[in-house]
Amino acid sequence: MIKAGIIGATGYAGAELVRLLLGHKEAEIVWYGSRSYVDQSYASIYQNMFQLVDATCMDDNMEELAAQADVIFTATPQGLCASLINEKILSGTKVIDLSADFRLKDVSVYEEWYKIKHQAPQYLEEAVYGLCEINREKIKTARLVANPGCYPTCSTLSIYPLAKEGLIDLSTLIIDAKSGTSGAGRGAKTDNLYCEVNENIKAYGVAGHRHTPEIEEQLGYASGEKVTLNFTPHLVPMNRGILITAYASLKKDVAYSDVKAVYDKYYEKERFVRVLPENVCPQTRWVEGSNYVDVNFKIDPRTNRIIMMGAMDNLVKGAAGQAVQNMNLLFGLDEAEGLYHAPMFP
Amino acid sequence: MIKAGIIGATGYAGAELVRLLLGHKEAEIVWYGSRSYVDQSYASIYQNMFQLVDATCMDDNMEELAAQADVIFTATPQGLCASLINEKILSGTKVIDLSADFRLKDVSVYEEWYKIKHQAPQYLEEAVYGLCEINREKIKTARLVANPGCYPTCSTLSIYPLAKEGLIDLSTLIIDAKSGTSGAGRGAKTDNLYCEVNENIKAYGVAGHRHTPEIEEQLGYASGEKVTLNFTPHLVPMNRGILITAYASLKKDVAYSDVKAVYDKYYEKERFVRVLPENVCPQTRWVEGSNYVDVNFKIDPRTNRIIMMGAMDNLVKGAAGQAVQNMNLLFGLDEAEGLYHAPMFP
Amino acid sequence: MIKAGIIGATGYAGAELVRLLLGHKEAEIVWYGSRSYVDQSYASIYQNMFQLVDATCMDDNMEELAAQADVIFTATPQGLCASLINEKILSGTKVIDLSADFRLKDVSVYEEWYKIKHQAPQYLEEAVYGLCEINREKIKTARLVANPGCYPTCSTLSIYPLAKEGLIDLSTLIIDAKSGTSGAGRGAKTDNLYCEVNENIKAYGVAGHRHTPEIEEQLGYASGEKVTLNFTPHLVPMNRGILITAYASLKKDVAYSDVKAVYDKYYEKERFVRVLPENVCPQTRWVEGSNYVDVNFKIDPRTNRIIMMGAMDNLVKGAAGQAVQNMNLLFGLDEAEGLYHAPMFP
Amino acid sequence: MIKAGIIGATGYAGAELVRLLLGHKEAEIVWYGSRSYVDQSYASIYQNMFQLVDATCMDDNMEELAAQADVIFTATPQGLCASLINEKILSGTKVIDLSADFRLKDVSVYEEWYKIKHQAPQYLEEAVYGLCEINREKIKTARLVANPGCYPTCSTLSIYPLAKEGLIDLSTLIIDAKSGTSGAGRGAKTDNLYCEVNENIKAYGVAGHRHTPEIEEQLGYASGEKVTLNFTPHLVPMNRGILITAYASLKKDVAYSDVKAVYDKYYEKERFVRVLPENVCPQTRWVEGSNYVDVNFKIDPRTNRIIMMGAMDNLVKGAAGQAVQNMNLLFGLDEAEGLYHAPMFP
Repeated sequence: MIKAGIIGATGYAGAELVRLLLGHKEAEIVWYGSRSYVDQSYASIYQNMFQLVDATCMDDNMEELAAQADVIFTATPQGLCASLINEKILSGTKVIDLSADFRLKDVSVYEEWYKIKHQAPQYLEEAVYGLCEINREKIKTARLVANPGCYPTCSTLSIYPLAKEGLIDLSTLIIDAKSGTSGAGRGAKTDNLYCEVNENIKAYGVAGHRHTPEIEEQLGYASGEKVTLNFTPHLVPMNRGILITAYASLKKDVAYSDVKAVYDKYYEKERFVRVLPENVCPQTRWVEGSNYVDVNFKIDPRTNRIIMMGAMDNLVKGAAGQAVQNMNLLFGLDEAEGLYHAPMFP
Repeated sequence: MIKAGIIGATGYAGAELVRLLLGHKEAEIVWYGSRSYVDQSYASIYQNMFQLVDATCMDDNMEELAAQADVIFTATPQGLCASLINEKILSGTKVIDLSADFRLKDVSVYEEWYKIKHQAPQYLEEAVYGLCEINREKIKTARLVANPGCYPTCSTLSIYPLAKEGLIDLSTLIIDAKSGTSGAGRGAKTDNLYCEVNENIKAYGVAGHRHTPEIEEQLGYASGEKVTLNFTPHLVPMNRGILITAYASLKKDVAYSDVKAVYDKYYEKERFVRVLPENVCPQTRWVEGSNYVDVNFKIDPRTNRIIMMGAMDNLVKGAAGQAVQNMNLLFGLDEAEGLYHAPMFP
Repeated sequence: MIKAGIIGATGYAGAELVRLLLGHKEAEIVWYGSRSYVDQSYASIYQNMFQLVDATCMDDNMEELAAQADVIFTATPQGLCASLINEKILSGTKVIDLSADFRLKDVSVYEEWYKIKHQAPQYLEEAVYGLCEINREKIKTARLVANPGCYPTCSTLSIYPLAKEGLIDLSTLIIDAKSGTSGAGRGAKTDNLYCEVNENIKAYGVAGHRHTPEIEEQLGYASGEKVTLNFTPHLVPMNRGILITAYASLKKDVAYSDVKAVYDKYYEKERFVRVLPENVCPQTRWVEGSNYVDVNFKIDPRTNRIIMMGAMDNLVKGAAGQAVQNMNLLFGLDEAEGLYHAPMFP
Repeated sequence: MIKAGIIGATGYAGAELVRLLLGHKEAEIVWYGSRSYVDQSYASIYQNMFQLVDATCMDDNMEELAAQADVIFTATPQGLCASLINEKILSGTKVIDLSADFRLKDVSVYEEWYKIKHQAPQYLEEAVYGLCEINREKIKTARLVANPGCYPTCSTLSIYPLAKEGLIDLSTLIIDAKSGTSGAGRGAKTDNLYCEVNENIKAYGVAGHRHTPEIEEQLGYASGEKVTLNFTPHLVPMNRGILITAYASLKKDVAYSDVKAVYDKYYEKERFVRVLPENVCPQTRWVEGSNYVDVNFKIDPRTNRIIMMGAMDNLVKGAAGQAVQNMNLLFGLDEAEGLYHAPMFP
């Protein structure tokens, strides 16, 4: 059994990790880290785990945790993982960081967008960006995996094949994203109160959201060119789910079947990316609770643009599920172990 | 592998059966019955099952289905199962009926509350009421299981220990129930439109809901007396979940620990009934997607009443999950097979 | 023009007062009090008021406010109004307190249930309980009006005629209440986050909610006897609305028409209480945004109980609307001025 | 008093017209048309109107209605108004059509996008597009007003000043729109059931929504050039509200203050268009129940694009409110009569 430790186990992503790992046959959780709730029963915070988890919350002593665990998940605010990680930890333990600390290769970009001084830039080169469908082989041998952001996962997977194959003009790329409220975390803020979110939709972080450079970097690798794009996230009154709607001009005259073939080339054998039938739009409800990303596209001959769409559960493929998928890769397990759940509807 | 057939596979309860059986190690679905969608791809109706279910919808030819299946689930409107069932079917196949056709032993009570003539009263005596925690042994040898209603499951399990042990005056029993909207089914009715349900709560079926006699019958067996009670359901703007709040006068002077001991006596070893810690109220979010029923109680010394509470997912323990639990009992499997899911939150 | 000041103008009830008073022909707001946002533009907190309110938030200096205003609304936490009020203020200004400070006549009951020492018990006798339909005449000449709680308003109005006329056995009375989340206020608490409230229903304050003695006192006045009852509130995933479902045994053998006549006797001429047609259940959506309370009842001959139901907007008739109605009474205006809005649906 | 008749009074837009006209000082409703509910009490369909509307539903005999009314609102499916209208009706009565029948000047565009043969193309030239802020003077003297679609109202008003002043390259324009579910109407369709819409977001009508040519036509008038754009609507789990997020490349090097000045030039004196302060994003909750459109923009120097945003209540400014605003213009009243409501929050 793989011994797993979680730092930040009482945030929404951390709690989802607990849910998924409880159903994982080859892993057990040995450390429920939560600075805010140290010494409190985990099940008293997440009552769904009553009688399922019999443990109390621990602090974030990463060195001690490393001594006990085979893999550490850090589901914590930006900066914490970078401030705690060191060679001793990495020498004996795999680390999967769900924060943004190791996602961007260029430390100056990180510091500009996150307004934080990076505490461990020496690991940026080594860290592997854990988008399993793209970097599968590199992940298998990594010590430190940077689990992708929720929006970047959905955006990159929806656009990747067309960027890679040079079908779209990336200078025209616009991503309009919509997310459920669990993406905003469990912090007690007025803006996230029920009455403030319910019966409302708004854009936020317009022209400045921190996931922008992450998407640009990944699509840059795919296309071999520098990518600058617009990314606008919106907050939607629902618990889970991300939908992205992306627009770009086509560089070639292509038919539906051409584009479908390109998506299939990359995803036909992927277990967790589903290219939907023609004219069927991705919807977040069809992936809820599961590790699937549903993608599809529509060509608009009137404007010569293609509209790319992707739907995903932000807490699963967008966070905890992809982290488990990465863990499976790191330890040579079936990539889908612990992630077999069919989406739940309604 | 147990071969399972579902009649009514495109209703919400039927679709939940599909979800649960897909994760069941000892069963496979051989028949996706849906009169409304015959010959259509199941995954085109329930897109969450895209690439997971590769089957088309079948009609409700129960005899032909019986020839292929070891167990038939009927997740259909009242009256259909009774109209189709016969000795030939029952002689070779187990039947788990999710409708109300075989829940009430007294045919006149059925016909009075459901306004339908019963087509197969000869099986009422034989049918076993499939409330697993109460009738476990009888279920194991049954041919025909009457899967309990959603409200009766939550109500009966929340009240049963106190009724059985004679702690409450059942003539004072009042059950105020609240349900998510999936309980209303997938039929296209104005009353169930998003805009009609959202931002609204209402009572319905006041003093006349058809689950009333079912609860009365079960609590009557527990207490050994005839029970007449008030049951008022309410429609809540959420997809899943049932909460019941029940009120009764205490017959004895009891302390918290006395009542807790009574609940523990019946449920301590039950996997799917969780008696919560003192002063912790059941909430539907903590059981969502799982087969758990969370129960608890509060004594009010000012009025000498006890308030009993229970929360459950109406589509799982209130329908499909309990049906799978019954199937497991019928076939001698681990009672929790296919039902290991931890509740999903948020 | 009546000059009105609001202390607590940035809570949900205070903000609703602002909305209603903006549409009131005889009143203008001269003081937007909000300790948390002093000196900030009101419209920057409540952006719906952009270009409609051009004022900055003031502190809670009640004496200074009294010098400027004809009426003061205190929409503040328990204890604040009692700590600020004095003879000087009351000698020149009407005060309508939306907190619980002056609702209960017995100071010991207040201190027991609210766990606060009362700072101005000398005004308890004088204060008038501002349930307009019951205490209309007394309100007209009051200096200090205790605006009723949300649950007590809906509960009392739904039950009052039957209590007054002696039709029900009040020792059997049980009130099961359901409220939207705005009733929990705008404080930044984890429990009230969108993801915690959405897709959930729970009871809270079971056998101990502070509105219990308030309802008991009012129904005691109606019936002339001491009333002890069960009151259980539940939190519902919606912004606005309260529904109460109340149960009591009938003391007489009555028909529908008898009970209807009793309700009509008290409410036929009331503008804001609507006795619905037979068999039509109150629903919160039908009163949203308005000052109406919809009530109805159902007799259950099987149990000899009557089920009483009431629906109301907790922020209007349950708080700000009733406060405006009280203001209208205090100043001899049309009782409905500023409250003409038809309910908004959907 | 203006006598108003409504055809289609039981749809959501028609019901909102009823709500608004009930609060209008110069108008009274003389005809509640509803083919589906002829002879039924209006308040039995829309219970919020109990005791407020004492009328039964009428058929859609437009000639008879014209004899009784000064103005007719048609809140009906596409094609109905065109099939009923004639010279006799128009000679004595003003008609405000909330359907799309007279919005597009080019009958072939109408027939191509709506897949309906137009029954009264002879009135297309005469009909005035009722976007009050743009066509105010023409509306005042019209006989037939084509009330704009919900998406086109929000889109056009958000983009109009920049199109008019030539600041943006309209060939790059992309509009990503999000709407509450009342926009889908009150028809009983599975897709609009609570459980299907709740916890979900999806795009629909991608590259083919019928509001596309309407927006193109209006922005074409503004800019003096032919406009072809992408418009993608999404369904959001909320009752009311439309948010649009639009993207276009800037044609000039402009600063925030330049663009702000352009918006102010067109909207500073407009009562119902609010240009928000810098960096404040429009949110649907801040306009709910009101006739306001909140607009704002953000310049992205990285991509040289401008992001334009607008929020509005689809049933008010997007339908019934704008229709009343048009009626006020037609009859020489204060343009805001009946539309004074402040937005309701929460």
